[in-house]
Amino acid sequence: MITVLRMGHRQKRDERLSTHVGLAARALGADEIIYSGEEDRGLIESVNAVAQRWGGKFSARYDGNWKGIIKKYKKKKFCIVHLTMYGISLKKKIGKIKKNKKILVIVGSEKVPPEVYQLADFNLAVTNQPHSEVAALAIFLHEYFKGKELDKKFPKAKIRIVPQGRGKKVLEK
Amino acid sequence: MITVLRMGHRQKRDERLSTHVGLAARALGADEIIYSGEEDRGLIESVNAVAQRWGGKFSARYDGNWKGIIKKYKKKKFCIVHLTMYGISLKKKIGKIKKNKKILVIVGSEKVPPEVYQLADFNLAVTNQPHSEVAALAIFLHEYFKGKELDKKFPKAKIRIVPQGRGKKVLEK
Repeated sequence: MITVLRMGHRQKRDERLSTHVGLAARALGADEIIYSGEEDRGLIESVNAVAQRWGGKFSARYDGNWKGIIKKYKKKKFCIVHLTMYGISLKKKIGKIKKNKKILVIVGSEKVPPEVYQLADFNLAVTNQPHSEVAALAIFLHEYFKGKELDKKFPKAKIRIVPQGRGKKVLEK
Repeated sequence: MITVLRMGHRQKRDERLSTHVGLAARALGADEIIYSGEEDRGLIESVNAVAQRWGGKFSARYDGNWKGIIKKYKKKKFCIVHLTMYGISLKKKIGKIKKNKKILVIVGSEKVPPEVYQLADFNLAVTNQPHSEVAALAIFLHEYFKGKELDKKFPKAKIRIVPQGRGKKVLEK
Protein backbone atom coordinates (compact mmCIF):
# COMPACT_ATOMS: atom_id res chain seq x y z
CA MET A 1 0.00 0.00 0.00
CA ILE A 2 1.59 3.22 -1.16
CA THR A 3 -0.07 6.57 -0.56
CA VAL A 4 1.42 9.73 -1.98
CA LEU A 5 0.89 13.04 -0.20
CA ARG A 6 1.42 16.05 -2.44
CA MET A 7 2.02 19.03 -0.16
CA GLY A 8 1.28 22.68 -0.78
CA HIS A 9 -0.53 22.53 -4.11
CA ARG A 10 -1.21 25.96 -5.59
CA GLN A 11 -4.15 25.94 -7.96
CA LYS A 12 -2.78 28.03 -10.81
CA ARG A 13 0.94 27.62 -10.51
CA ASP A 14 1.09 23.87 -9.84
CA GLU A 15 -1.83 22.59 -11.88
CA ARG A 16 0.17 20.62 -14.41
CA LEU A 17 2.98 19.52 -12.13
CA SER A 18 0.51 18.26 -9.55
CA THR A 19 -1.31 16.38 -12.31
CA HIS A 20 1.98 14.80 -13.38
CA VAL A 21 2.72 13.81 -9.77
CA GLY A 22 -0.69 12.10 -9.57
CA LEU A 23 -0.44 10.32 -12.92
CA ALA A 24 3.14 9.19 -12.31
CA ALA A 25 2.10 7.89 -8.86
CA ARG A 26 -0.68 5.86 -10.49
CA ALA A 27 1.32 4.57 -13.47
CA LEU A 28 4.25 3.55 -11.26
CA GLY A 29 2.35 1.51 -8.72
CA ALA A 30 1.05 3.77 -5.94
CA ASP A 31 -2.50 3.22 -4.68
CA GLU A 32 -3.71 6.72 -4.00
CA ILE A 33 -2.74 10.35 -3.87
CA ILE A 34 -3.83 12.97 -1.38
CA TYR A 35 -3.45 16.60 -2.39
CA SER A 36 -2.92 19.21 0.27
CA GLY A 37 -2.53 22.98 -0.12
CA GLU A 38 -5.18 24.83 -2.11
CA GLU A 39 -8.32 22.85 -2.85
CA ASP A 40 -8.56 22.16 -6.57
CA ARG A 41 -11.54 20.13 -7.71
CA GLY A 42 -10.52 20.23 -11.35
CA LEU A 43 -7.22 18.57 -10.48
CA ILE A 44 -8.82 15.79 -8.44
CA GLU A 45 -11.43 15.18 -11.12
CA SER A 46 -8.92 15.04 -13.93
CA VAL A 47 -6.64 12.56 -12.14
CA ASN A 48 -9.61 10.39 -11.17
CA ALA A 49 -10.96 10.56 -14.72
CA VAL A 50 -7.68 9.17 -16.07
CA ALA A 51 -7.72 6.46 -13.38
CA GLN A 52 -11.25 5.43 -14.29
CA ARG A 53 -10.63 5.37 -18.01
CA TRP A 54 -7.26 3.64 -17.92
CA GLY A 55 -8.16 1.05 -15.29
CA GLY A 56 -6.85 -0.09 -11.93
CA LYS A 57 -7.82 1.10 -8.48
CA PHE A 58 -5.91 4.34 -8.06
CA SER A 59 -7.73 7.33 -6.64
CA ALA A 60 -7.08 10.99 -5.83
CA ARG A 61 -8.61 13.09 -3.08
CA TYR A 62 -8.14 16.40 -1.32
CA ASP A 63 -7.33 16.93 2.36
CA GLY A 64 -6.03 20.30 3.49
CA ASN A 65 -4.89 19.04 6.89
CA TRP A 66 -1.47 17.62 6.00
CA LYS A 67 -0.36 17.33 9.59
CA GLY A 68 -3.46 15.34 10.43
CA ILE A 69 -2.83 13.04 7.45
CA ILE A 70 0.77 12.33 8.44
CA LYS A 71 -0.21 11.61 12.03
CA LYS A 72 -3.11 9.39 10.95
CA TYR A 73 -0.89 7.34 8.64
CA LYS A 74 1.77 7.06 11.33
CA LYS A 75 -0.87 5.58 13.62
CA LYS A 76 -1.83 3.14 10.86
CA LYS A 77 1.83 1.99 10.89
CA PHE A 78 2.77 3.54 7.58
CA CYS A 79 6.44 4.33 7.11
CA ILE A 80 6.64 8.07 6.39
CA VAL A 81 9.10 8.87 3.59
CA HIS A 82 9.66 12.52 2.71
CA LEU A 83 11.45 13.06 -0.60
CA THR A 84 13.76 16.05 -0.30
CA MET A 85 17.03 17.16 -1.87
CA TYR A 86 18.30 17.90 1.66
CA GLY A 87 17.91 14.31 2.86
CA ILE A 88 20.02 11.16 3.02
CA SER A 89 20.77 9.29 -0.19
CA LEU A 90 18.09 6.89 -1.42
CA LYS A 91 20.72 4.19 -1.92
CA LYS A 92 21.62 4.24 1.77
CA LYS A 93 18.08 3.89 3.04
CA ILE A 94 16.02 2.08 0.41
CA GLY A 95 16.88 -1.35 1.86
CA LYS A 96 15.36 -0.41 5.20
CA ILE A 97 12.38 1.29 3.61
CA LYS A 98 11.60 -1.75 1.46
CA LYS A 99 10.94 -3.75 4.61
CA ASN A 100 7.76 -1.71 5.04
CA LYS A 101 4.64 -2.71 3.16
CA LYS A 102 2.78 0.51 3.94
CA ILE A 103 4.40 3.75 2.87
CA LEU A 104 3.28 7.35 2.88
CA VAL A 105 5.49 9.18 0.38
CA ILE A 106 5.50 12.95 0.83
CA VAL A 107 6.47 15.21 -2.03
CA GLY A 108 6.56 18.94 -1.62
CA SER A 109 5.99 21.91 -3.78
CA GLU A 110 8.26 24.99 -3.27
CA LYS A 111 8.35 25.30 0.51
CA VAL A 112 7.85 22.39 2.86
CA PRO A 113 7.14 23.23 6.52
CA PRO A 114 10.04 22.26 8.87
CA GLU A 115 7.68 20.03 10.81
CA VAL A 116 7.51 17.59 7.89
CA TYR A 117 11.22 16.87 8.31
CA GLN A 118 10.53 16.04 11.96
CA LEU A 119 7.47 13.90 11.37
CA ALA A 120 9.08 11.84 8.60
CA ASP A 121 10.73 8.51 9.38
CA PHE A 122 13.04 9.11 6.43
CA ASN A 123 14.05 12.34 4.73
CA LEU A 124 15.23 10.80 1.51
CA ALA A 125 17.23 12.41 -1.29
CA VAL A 126 17.01 11.26 -4.89
CA THR A 127 20.28 13.13 -5.48
CA ASN A 128 21.12 16.27 -3.49
CA GLN A 129 20.61 18.35 -6.63
CA PRO A 130 17.63 20.55 -7.44
CA HIS A 131 15.37 18.88 -9.97
CA SER A 132 11.78 17.66 -9.83
CA GLU A 133 9.40 16.04 -7.39
CA VAL A 134 7.98 14.07 -10.34
CA ALA A 135 11.41 12.61 -11.16
CA ALA A 136 12.18 11.94 -7.49
CA LEU A 137 8.87 10.14 -6.97
CA ALA A 138 9.37 8.09 -10.16
CA ILE A 139 12.81 6.86 -9.12
CA PHE A 140 11.66 6.19 -5.57
CA LEU A 141 8.75 4.02 -6.77
CA HIS A 142 10.96 2.30 -9.35
CA GLU A 143 13.49 1.38 -6.65
CA TYR A 144 10.84 0.42 -4.12
CA PHE A 145 9.07 -1.93 -6.55
CA LYS A 146 12.38 -3.10 -8.09
CA GLY A 147 11.16 -2.29 -11.57
CA LYS A 148 8.15 -4.61 -11.29
CA GLU A 149 5.83 -1.61 -11.36
CA LEU A 150 6.58 -1.29 -15.08
CA ASP A 151 4.63 -4.53 -15.66
CA LYS A 152 1.66 -3.53 -13.51
CA LYS A 153 -1.76 -4.46 -14.91
CA PHE A 154 -4.67 -2.04 -14.80
CA PRO A 155 -7.88 -4.10 -14.80
CA LYS A 156 -11.19 -2.83 -16.17
CA ALA A 157 -9.56 -0.28 -18.44
CA LYS A 158 -11.79 1.37 -21.03
CA ILE A 159 -8.77 2.24 -23.11
CA ARG A 160 -5.43 0.60 -23.54
CA ILE A 161 -2.36 0.87 -25.70
CA VAL A 162 -0.96 -1.94 -27.79
CA PRO A 163 2.80 -1.32 -27.80
CA GLN A 164 4.22 -0.52 -31.23
CA GLY A 165 7.72 -0.14 -32.62
CA ARG A 166 6.46 2.85 -34.62
CA GLY A 167 3.22 4.79 -34.43
CA LYS A 168 0.21 4.38 -32.19
CA LYS A 169 -2.29 1.62 -31.55
CA VAL A 170 -5.07 2.25 -29.07
CA LEU A 171 -7.94 -0.06 -28.16
CA GLU A 172 -11.09 1.51 -26.77
CA LYS A 173 -14.16 -0.13 -25.30
CA MET B 1 27.10 11.49 -23.94
CA ILE B 2 23.39 11.98 -23.42
CA THR B 3 21.50 14.81 -25.07
CA VAL B 4 17.85 15.41 -24.26
CA LEU B 5 15.59 16.98 -26.87
CA ARG B 6 12.46 18.51 -25.38
CA MET B 7 9.96 18.88 -28.22
CA GLY B 8 7.17 21.39 -28.64
CA HIS B 9 7.76 23.67 -25.67
CA ARG B 10 5.01 26.24 -25.18
CA GLN B 11 6.19 29.30 -23.33
CA LYS B 12 3.31 29.83 -20.94
CA ARG B 13 1.81 26.40 -20.58
CA ASP B 14 4.99 24.35 -20.28
CA GLU B 15 7.28 26.71 -18.40
CA ARG B 16 7.56 24.73 -15.19
CA LEU B 17 7.36 21.25 -16.71
CA SER B 18 10.06 22.09 -19.23
CA THR B 19 12.19 23.43 -16.39
CA HIS B 20 11.68 20.17 -14.50
CA VAL B 21 12.64 18.18 -17.61
CA GLY B 22 15.87 20.19 -17.87
CA LEU B 23 16.78 19.98 -14.18
CA ALA B 24 15.97 16.27 -13.98
CA ALA B 25 18.07 15.67 -17.11
CA ARG B 26 21.01 17.46 -15.45
CA ALA B 27 20.65 15.89 -12.00
CA LEU B 28 20.31 12.39 -13.45
CA GLY B 29 23.37 12.40 -15.63
CA ALA B 30 22.51 13.87 -19.05
CA ASP B 31 25.01 16.30 -20.61
CA GLU B 32 22.77 18.82 -22.31
CA ILE B 33 19.22 19.68 -23.20
CA ILE B 34 17.93 21.24 -26.37
CA TYR B 35 14.52 22.89 -26.24
CA SER B 36 12.41 23.03 -29.37
CA GLY B 37 8.98 24.57 -29.88
CA GLU B 38 8.50 28.18 -28.80
CA GLU B 39 11.68 30.08 -28.05
CA ASP B 40 11.87 30.88 -24.33
CA ARG B 41 14.97 32.71 -23.17
CA GLY B 42 13.82 32.79 -19.55
CA LEU B 43 13.64 29.00 -19.50
CA ILE B 44 17.10 28.53 -21.01
CA GLU B 45 18.59 31.11 -18.66
CA SER B 46 17.02 29.63 -15.56
CA VAL B 47 18.19 26.07 -16.35
CA ASN B 48 21.71 27.32 -17.18
CA ALA B 49 21.75 29.43 -14.00
CA VAL B 50 21.05 26.32 -11.90
CA ALA B 51 23.73 24.40 -13.83
CA GLN B 52 26.31 27.12 -13.18
CA ARG B 53 25.50 27.49 -9.53
CA TRP B 54 25.22 23.79 -8.71
CA GLY B 55 28.26 22.68 -10.72
CA GLY B 56 29.03 20.19 -13.47
CA LYS B 57 29.00 20.74 -17.21
CA PHE B 58 25.34 20.55 -18.15
CA SER B 59 23.96 23.15 -20.51
CA ALA B 60 20.64 24.14 -22.07
CA ARG B 61 20.03 25.75 -25.45
CA TYR B 62 17.25 26.46 -27.88
CA ASP B 63 16.91 25.15 -31.43
CA GLY B 64 13.56 25.38 -33.17
CA ASN B 65 14.50 22.97 -35.95
CA TRP B 66 13.82 19.63 -34.26
CA LYS B 67 14.01 17.67 -37.48
CA GLY B 68 17.41 19.15 -38.22
CA ILE B 69 18.60 18.24 -34.70
CA ILE B 70 17.49 14.63 -34.98
CA LYS B 71 19.12 14.24 -38.39
CA LYS B 72 22.33 15.89 -37.21
CA TYR B 73 22.58 13.62 -34.17
CA LYS B 74 21.84 10.57 -36.32
CA LYS B 75 24.79 11.54 -38.52
CA LYS B 76 26.94 11.87 -35.41
CA LYS B 77 26.02 8.21 -34.63
CA PHE B 78 23.76 8.98 -31.70
CA CYS B 79 21.12 6.37 -30.93
CA ILE B 80 17.75 8.15 -31.14
CA VAL B 81 15.41 7.15 -28.31
CA HIS B 82 11.92 8.61 -28.28
CA LEU B 83 10.07 8.18 -24.98
CA THR B 84 6.40 7.57 -25.69
CA MET B 85 3.56 5.73 -23.99
CA TYR B 86 2.77 4.14 -27.39
CA GLY B 87 6.17 2.46 -27.69
CA ILE B 88 7.77 -0.85 -26.76
CA SER B 89 8.50 -1.58 -23.12
CA LEU B 90 11.74 -0.14 -21.73
CA LYS B 91 12.59 -3.52 -20.23
CA LYS B 92 12.62 -5.18 -23.64
CA LYS B 93 14.92 -2.66 -25.27
CA ILE B 94 17.14 -1.13 -22.58
CA GLY B 95 19.80 -3.83 -23.00
CA LYS B 96 20.27 -2.94 -26.67
CA ILE B 97 20.13 0.78 -25.98
CA LYS B 98 22.80 0.53 -23.28
CA LYS B 99 25.29 -0.63 -25.90
CA ASN B 100 25.26 2.91 -27.27
CA LYS B 101 27.44 5.53 -25.65
CA LYS B 102 25.80 8.42 -27.45
CA ILE B 103 22.07 8.86 -27.02
CA LEU B 104 19.60 11.51 -28.08
CA VAL B 105 16.57 11.13 -25.81
CA ILE B 106 13.45 12.80 -27.18
CA VAL B 107 10.62 13.77 -24.84
CA GLY B 108 7.47 15.35 -26.15
CA SER B 109 4.95 17.78 -24.91
CA GLU B 110 1.25 17.21 -25.85
CA LYS B 111 1.48 16.34 -29.53
CA VAL B 112 4.54 14.79 -31.12
CA PRO B 113 4.71 14.90 -34.94
CA PRO B 114 4.39 11.41 -36.53
CA GLU B 115 7.77 11.87 -38.18
CA VAL B 116 9.50 11.58 -34.80
CA TYR B 117 8.24 7.98 -34.50
CA GLN B 118 9.82 7.27 -37.90
CA LEU B 119 13.13 8.99 -37.23
CA ALA B 120 13.65 7.33 -33.84
CA ASP B 121 15.71 4.16 -33.51
CA PHE B 122 13.58 3.23 -30.52
CA ASN B 123 10.09 4.33 -29.54
CA LEU B 124 10.32 3.40 -25.91
CA ALA B 125 7.53 3.16 -23.35
CA VAL B 126 8.11 3.69 -19.64
CA THR B 127 4.76 1.96 -19.08
CA ASN B 128 1.95 2.25 -21.65
CA GLN B 129 0.01 4.45 -19.23
CA PRO B 130 -0.41 8.21 -19.41
CA HIS B 131 1.82 9.94 -16.89
CA SER B 132 4.70 12.37 -17.22
CA GLU B 133 7.65 13.00 -19.50
CA VAL B 134 9.63 14.00 -16.39
CA ALA B 135 8.97 10.61 -14.75
CA ALA B 136 9.66 8.74 -18.00
CA LEU B 137 12.96 10.55 -18.52
CA ALA B 138 13.98 9.94 -14.89
CA ILE B 139 13.40 6.20 -15.09
CA PHE B 140 15.05 5.97 -18.50
CA LEU B 141 18.22 7.70 -17.22
CA HIS B 142 18.17 5.65 -14.01
CA GLU B 143 18.02 2.41 -16.01
CA TYR B 144 20.56 3.57 -18.59
CA PHE B 145 23.11 4.54 -15.92
CA LYS B 146 22.19 1.56 -13.67
CA GLY B 147 21.65 3.85 -10.70
CA LYS B 148 25.19 5.24 -10.84
CA GLU B 149 23.85 8.63 -11.86
CA LEU B 150 22.67 9.07 -8.25
CA ASP B 151 26.32 9.33 -7.18
CA LYS B 152 27.32 11.77 -9.90
CA LYS B 153 29.68 14.56 -8.82
CA PHE B 154 29.14 18.13 -9.93
CA PRO B 155 32.53 19.87 -9.88
CA LYS B 156 32.97 23.61 -9.36
CA ALA B 157 29.67 24.02 -7.57
CA LYS B 158 29.07 27.32 -5.82
CA ILE B 159 26.47 25.68 -3.62
CA ARG B 160 26.06 22.20 -2.31
CA ILE B 161 23.96 20.26 0.14
CA VAL B 162 25.31 18.25 3.03
CA PRO B 163 22.83 15.37 3.42
CA GLN B 164 20.94 15.41 6.70
CA GLY B 165 18.63 12.99 8.45
CA ARG B 166 16.46 15.97 9.43
CA GLY B 167 16.53 19.57 8.32
CA LYS B 168 18.74 21.36 5.82
CA LYS B 169 22.45 22.01 5.56
CA VAL B 170 23.70 24.05 2.64
CA LEU B 171 27.27 25.16 1.92
CA GLU B 172 27.77 28.22 -0.26
CA LYS B 173 30.95 29.67 -1.68
